[in-house]
Amino acid sequence: MSASEPLVILGIDPGTCITGYGVLSHCHKKQVALGYGCIRPPKKSILSERYRILFEGIETLIQTYQPHVLVVETQFVNKNVQSAMKLGMARGMAILAASRKKIPIYEYAPKKAKLAVVGNGSASKAQVQKMVQLLLNLSAIPEPEDAADALALALCHANSLHQLSSLQGTIL
Amino acid sequence: MSASEPLVILGIDPGTCITGYGVLSHCHKKQVALGYGCIRPPKKSILSERYRILFEGIETLIQTYQPHVLVVETQFVNKNVQSAMKLGMARGMAILAASRKKIPIYEYAPKKAKLAVVGNGSASKAQVQKMVQLLLNLSAIPEPEDAADALALALCHANSLHQLSSLQGTIL
Repeated sequence: MSASEPLVILGIDPGTCITGYGVLSHCHKKQVALGYGCIRPPKKSILSERYRILFEGIETLIQTYQPHVLVVETQFVNKNVQSAMKLGMARGMAILAASRKKIPIYEYAPKKAKLAVVGNGSASKAQVQKMVQLLLNLSAIPEPEDAADALALALCHANSLHQLSSLQGTIL
Repeated sequence: MSASEPLVILGIDPGTCITGYGVLSHCHKKQVALGYGCIRPPKKSILSERYRILFEGIETLIQTYQPHVLVVETQFVNKNVQSAMKLGMARGMAILAASRKKIPIYEYAPKKAKLAVVGNGSASKAQVQKMVQLLLNLSAIPEPEDAADALALALCHANSLHQLSSLQGTIL
């Protein structure tokens, strides 16, 4: 890929109930939102079915947008071990879908994504939503907040491409 | 499937470094080991590659043995949240592989598997290995212990089919 071709970045904010996604095109230091939203497996479905729906949803996003890179959050959940395990399973779906297509995966700590978008590593969800809207010139606040978080991750990766190595993500 | 046809049970003990598996055929209250072993993604591989290898390994097991059911452990790890997340990702690979083939997934608490095999919910790994060898009439102690644990899970499910509902597994 040459430097003048747009880089397509898929940000994913995984969760068992709701997984946010945000897709950006990044070219000449400018970013354009190609799409964002969320995957919500039916609550009635059994857990294994929900993971399958998540995985297939992410596969469809990859097929649709053909991203060059996938970005996820480094998660330091402070909930209990069972929650961490469920989150891990959801996260695994995103990682597997990308890995099967040989798409490199980067991860960023939530603070880095907030810092990149709001300029404050402790920004609120609402601040992230507002700044994502401004930076991407969206006509409305990106909803749900999981989609805004996914866009923030993608923006964070786009910014990191022009930053010092200390701000760069970790390859997963 | 009629009652006289053998039920093929695939037990999986997931882990990022080593995932044990054990396959049993269960017919007329008797179990025969069809295969056991482990999937060990190369340590040098990046994490996403390891999950892909795990997923594809489990897909291959499903293709080879055509199990009617997949059994995993209910995991209550008492390690840190990062370990739980990694374990969740590995577990997600087994669950997704089965879910994509519409294979029902059952889970059992580790204590139940030990109780089913050794008669003691607090049995040691070595006791589980020894009893699995005896129950399945194996020529050697099943190694590694992850494979023995996977066989124990499969045996636990086989036993539960003739037990009180309190000993039955949970559908995942």
